[in-house]
Amino acid sequence: MSKSSVFQVLNGRTKKSFFSHNANATFPYFASGLNRHTIIHMNHTFYQRKPRNSERKFDGRRRVIIEGVTPEIDDGRYPAKRAAGETVVVGADIFTDGADCVTAELCFRPRSGRAWKRVPMNQLQNDRWEGEFTVGEPGGYEFTVEAWVDHFETWRRGLKKKIDAGQEVSLELRMGAGMVEKAASRASKKDAGRLMELASVMTRGEAGVAETAAQSGELSELMRRYPDKEFAIQYGRVLEVRVDQKKAVFSTWYELFPRSWAEKPGRHGTFRESKRLLPLIARMGFDVVYLPPVHPIGTTKRKGRNNSLIAGPDDPGSCWAIGSVDGGHKSVHPELGTIKDFEEFVREAGKHGISIALDIAFQCSPDHPYVKEHPQWFKWRPDGTVQFAENPPKKYEDILPLDFETEDWENLWIELKSVMLFWMKKGVRIFRVDNPHTKAFLFWDWAIGEIQKEYPDAVFLAEAFTRPKVMARLAKGGFNQSYTYFTWRNTKADLQEYLTELTTTEVKEYMRPNFWPNTPDILHEELQTGRRSTFITRMVLAATLSSNYGMYGPAYELCEHVPVRQGKEEYLDSEKYEIKQWDMDRSGNIRAEITAVNRIRRENPALQQTANIEFLRVDAGEGREHDMLMGYVKRSADDSNIILTVVNLDPQSTHAGWLRFPLEKFELPHTHHFRVEDLLSSRTYEWDGEWNYIELNPDHMPVHIFKVNLHP
Amino acid sequence: MSKSSVFQVLNGRTKKSFFSHNANATFPYFASGLNRHTIIHMNHTFYQRKPRNSERKFDGRRRVIIEGVTPEIDDGRYPAKRAAGETVVVGADIFTDGADCVTAELCFRPRSGRAWKRVPMNQLQNDRWEGEFTVGEPGGYEFTVEAWVDHFETWRRGLKKKIDAGQEVSLELRMGAGMVEKAASRASKKDAGRLMELASVMTRGEAGVAETAAQSGELSELMRRYPDKEFAIQYGRVLEVRVDQKKAVFSTWYELFPRSWAEKPGRHGTFRESKRLLPLIARMGFDVVYLPPVHPIGTTKRKGRNNSLIAGPDDPGSCWAIGSVDGGHKSVHPELGTIKDFEEFVREAGKHGISIALDIAFQCSPDHPYVKEHPQWFKWRPDGTVQFAENPPKKYEDILPLDFETEDWENLWIELKSVMLFWMKKGVRIFRVDNPHTKAFLFWDWAIGEIQKEYPDAVFLAEAFTRPKVMARLAKGGFNQSYTYFTWRNTKADLQEYLTELTTTEVKEYMRPNFWPNTPDILHEELQTGRRSTFITRMVLAATLSSNYGMYGPAYELCEHVPVRQGKEEYLDSEKYEIKQWDMDRSGNIRAEITAVNRIRRENPALQQTANIEFLRVDAGEGREHDMLMGYVKRSADDSNIILTVVNLDPQSTHAGWLRFPLEKFELPHTHHFRVEDLLSSRTYEWDGEWNYIELNPDHMPVHIFKVNLHP
Repeated sequence: MSKSSVFQVLNGRTKKSFFSHNANATFPYFASGLNRHTIIHMNHTFYQRKPRNSERKFDGRRRVIIEGVTPEIDDGRYPAKRAAGETVVVGADIFTDGADCVTAELCFRPRSGRAWKRVPMNQLQNDRWEGEFTVGEPGGYEFTVEAWVDHFETWRRGLKKKIDAGQEVSLELRMGAGMVEKAASRASKKDAGRLMELASVMTRGEAGVAETAAQSGELSELMRRYPDKEFAIQYGRVLEVRVDQKKAVFSTWYELFPRSWAEKPGRHGTFRESKRLLPLIARMGFDVVYLPPVHPIGTTKRKGRNNSLIAGPDDPGSCWAIGSVDGGHKSVHPELGTIKDFEEFVREAGKHGISIALDIAFQCSPDHPYVKEHPQWFKWRPDGTVQFAENPPKKYEDILPLDFETEDWENLWIELKSVMLFWMKKGVRIFRVDNPHTKAFLFWDWAIGEIQKEYPDAVFLAEAFTRPKVMARLAKGGFNQSYTYFTWRNTKADLQEYLTELTTTEVKEYMRPNFWPNTPDILHEELQTGRRSTFITRMVLAATLSSNYGMYGPAYELCEHVPVRQGKEEYLDSEKYEIKQWDMDRSGNIRAEITAVNRIRRENPALQQTANIEFLRVDAGEGREHDMLMGYVKRSADDSNIILTVVNLDPQSTHAGWLRFPLEKFELPHTHHFRVEDLLSSRTYEWDGEWNYIELNPDHMPVHIFKVNLHP
Repeated sequence: MSKSSVFQVLNGRTKKSFFSHNANATFPYFASGLNRHTIIHMNHTFYQRKPRNSERKFDGRRRVIIEGVTPEIDDGRYPAKRAAGETVVVGADIFTDGADCVTAELCFRPRSGRAWKRVPMNQLQNDRWEGEFTVGEPGGYEFTVEAWVDHFETWRRGLKKKIDAGQEVSLELRMGAGMVEKAASRASKKDAGRLMELASVMTRGEAGVAETAAQSGELSELMRRYPDKEFAIQYGRVLEVRVDQKKAVFSTWYELFPRSWAEKPGRHGTFRESKRLLPLIARMGFDVVYLPPVHPIGTTKRKGRNNSLIAGPDDPGSCWAIGSVDGGHKSVHPELGTIKDFEEFVREAGKHGISIALDIAFQCSPDHPYVKEHPQWFKWRPDGTVQFAENPPKKYEDILPLDFETEDWENLWIELKSVMLFWMKKGVRIFRVDNPHTKAFLFWDWAIGEIQKEYPDAVFLAEAFTRPKVMARLAKGGFNQSYTYFTWRNTKADLQEYLTELTTTEVKEYMRPNFWPNTPDILHEELQTGRRSTFITRMVLAATLSSNYGMYGPAYELCEHVPVRQGKEEYLDSEKYEIKQWDMDRSGNIRAEITAVNRIRRENPALQQTANIEFLRVDAGEGREHDMLMGYVKRSADDSNIILTVVNLDPQSTHAGWLRFPLEKFELPHTHHFRVEDLLSSRTYEWDGEWNYIELNPDHMPVHIFKVNLHP
């Protein structure tokens, strides 16, 4: 039976029986029919390397299996995330039947690219293979895995064993020469010539000479260059990597309310006036300034100081109650200035290396223009009023949620996306999205995807303090950074467990934590003591555990610590509801410490990643793990930068213990002599061997940030 | 804009801009265009519950997310496996944005069925949901998950909180009544009437009466009956369950060579003569008799006794060297009898409840008819000979492997499948497949799928003693049982680790172990001491750890233990190469013990499953885990049958220790008094509380198999 008639059958053009000596048997795919799950399987697994035509979709001679490819998030539904210049390590289980050798390649390309670039994959243990590539500019990359049975390698391995065992191999040499001649037909003219020469030596040379040629590195190298990929298979999926700008991975955030920064105390601050803060913030080492919503604030049901139900005549209201007669999400609150002022503020920030992050809070005050212009985007109640936000029995009458089940959802989506695009056109690249988990997931999937197609450097931070799977889903769907539970992880066990989850499970491929010791909403109980050492410790933890971290700046610098009521996490006299006057030089502030830590982060690449963390053993004596001293090391990919942080989690007492530095991970003996320098105090210590004494007095400085010099 | 014009845009029939107040904005899917990974995502995740037409593929208002569905093997490429009557517990992560309630259903059906059957799923912790269904006869089942935002439930929960907080709820009652009226339009006539009555009471009744009606169980129940599924979504995949016959899960195998069972010693045994063994084997409690290949044996390069290179004139040869002038894989070795004799043997076995398992070894002796009839199925060498099997420098010149890379692979596949169908037509339902991992995986995927479509009760046991991922892939691809590493797992730590892998990881969904303490190829070093207690222990371990187990029967019963050479696992004077005469009444045999254990397995459902195992703590004193005494409990689904096995793994010494029975798993206090009966000795013991003394003397009996009676 000719090939073409097989393919006719394959394509269902004819179903005639073709199996000569058994009239009942027909081509397996049709008459017998592949059963359903087999078809599904085959469609998923097989991917013609270079499909010459649609007739050659399935070939039973492709014997290699490729499975368990990583990173692959939810069967490839979501991309893994990297920043420009980072590496993607791709793993796969690859094997074939029998004892033949397999060769595998990692194929990758920018999403816009046509041709695959290829790098060889290496075989590790237990049929696991690995390869890697580095991503370029923000945008998308694609990758997949290709593998084939490598008959030449199988032959080479067998030949060596036979020669070693003293067997006669002239027949083997002839078989090998056949493969070499076939390779010549795929080779460049020059290489083809050399391959034919080698084949000739293998068949016609004297035994010794022929064997030497067959086993030569030259032949091996030439044959690797022209592999026989006739039965190569490609993994059934092309997987994606989303490449973000570098600040998606390493960023230092400072949150402030411009309205509190009037030059003249008591007045409503403006963008123009707030510009003067930018050089100071840059000097402290921050590179993102996050502004709560800058839009017109509603007056209906406006909240007063300390979240009171009735606002006084001078109360500015919560800036999250967006929208008034002055406009909505595409307008600027008139008292802050104009859109032009905002643009100028963004530009000025850029000069200091600062990106402005804007708050995206898709909710409306009752005065928002949408309510009249798009009444269909809200849920109306039988009494003719709009459904306000509530968490029964609590009511939030100053905020109207948008109804993502509106019949007009397409236009709602388009409008909301256009809000973000509006601000991108004003120079904004980073958005801190307020409560994204109360809007439809599919909207974010779509909107972020769309925006990043136009602005590949756009970064979205999800403020979703909610259940783990909901947070994970937002990150999978496109959010580039995520607020976390860090604020509520305070013990050594909790911190280590949480970091282990974030940095060693699949989560690390798509969710990038951003650690905040405080926010305008969250003054954690631990900070309410007002202890300076606690503020320093939590700042250092955030800054060294996570490469993205931020703070609600003025309040944190000044160690603001009084809650609105005992047992509450809201600040007393919260800036959310009033204009504050901050005395930034107030005694006890921790500006110097923040500045030092941010400088250390900038100067040490090891701190510019998150998943490179390893927790160390700290012994309290008698083999007992210390529960107050916590140590962890981070290292750059090439080990040229190694940072060891040790923290005393007890703000009240000095603690001492023995810290074990894992010299074996650097291929050094446990007795190795090395030096560490505390980058905060500039003191250096000579360490002999893996176990070293640590003592931290919280009244003095509750942390060490050591730069480790293994070869002083 | 009308709905139909939206859908026209969706379908690309028109791309005109339709968004009234922004001429640049167009429908999101086209002009802006969903980006690629979003499209992929949406295609995977969304599945219209009842697609009215192709235009309604995507609706942004479907707000529920369904992910992490289990069991789902490799993204649904392979089915999970169950036996007739077993339960499939389906899990899923299900959640929506915001705080709305979600309701979820598990949908399932036999693969041939049209309509989904539905059962509610229950919410566990952390957004995890679970539901279950029971499978029927052998064949295939499908399942998926459907979920929707349940506005009525959300409303009901909110109403209760508001009433509890003493709020006025007349507006809420009107909103609820609206939902009730809508449900009435979906309801049966009778229910619709009642719903309308209730809605009327809610809006027009007195406050107290209206609230009572709104919170009534009756309303709740009626509303659950007619849910609003307008925005329901179905998980993006329909997953499969392969349902096997019961012997796939619970079977007891006895391997024998019929040629050794001539009535007159010294002669070649036949099927007719071997029939007399069947009642004896059945009496011992075996329900599968596995026959090594029954086909004509080649003479070219035939192996002699003890695998010698030259066969003597009377040597029968290895039955795995298949094919001679008398025929190939569809013939019977003439000295065993005829095909009719074979069929009669199968029928006779059936009368005793025994299934015959046939060996499928797809390889050929040089005399196999295929070599001449289908030379293209073999690899030919430049010297005009066929490539024999080898593992350089070793050569196996009596065996020619089939070439799965032959251009004629389609016909090869069809022929090999027809071999199995041939024997199915002779009454065989179980195949023990020899070295399936040296044949193309895709062939098995296809062939097993095809055969099971015709014979849903077909069972294939994979004899692949190879790397873990290769074994797993064969099981995923369709093999119903798998030989395992059990034979080489001898210490307590190794056994517990291996069983944990097999019974607590995803592997348990698709790979069913079959434990063999010996095979004609494998006489483990531990058995070579010939200690009777070791033979008993290994048999009991196989029989109680795994619900499928087997033995190379005569040799095991008689405690045959002499290896061909020190350091080898092959038997001396192996039955593979010669006709044996077994004296089954030889002293020291363990037939009584085997018979007892098989009876216990038959009478106790707890031992008829594998994944229901839990290992128990055995204390050797001072809190130290005992390394020789191993205990494990198995329980039937309803806890009506509980079997506790305790084994002394040291064949030479008596050991004692304290075993902890996990009373808390049965919701009993740790001081509970209960009774255990050793089913081997028939002795009963009264146990007080969770810790109980155990002592096992290997010279007497190295194991206890206790039936646990928790409420004596």
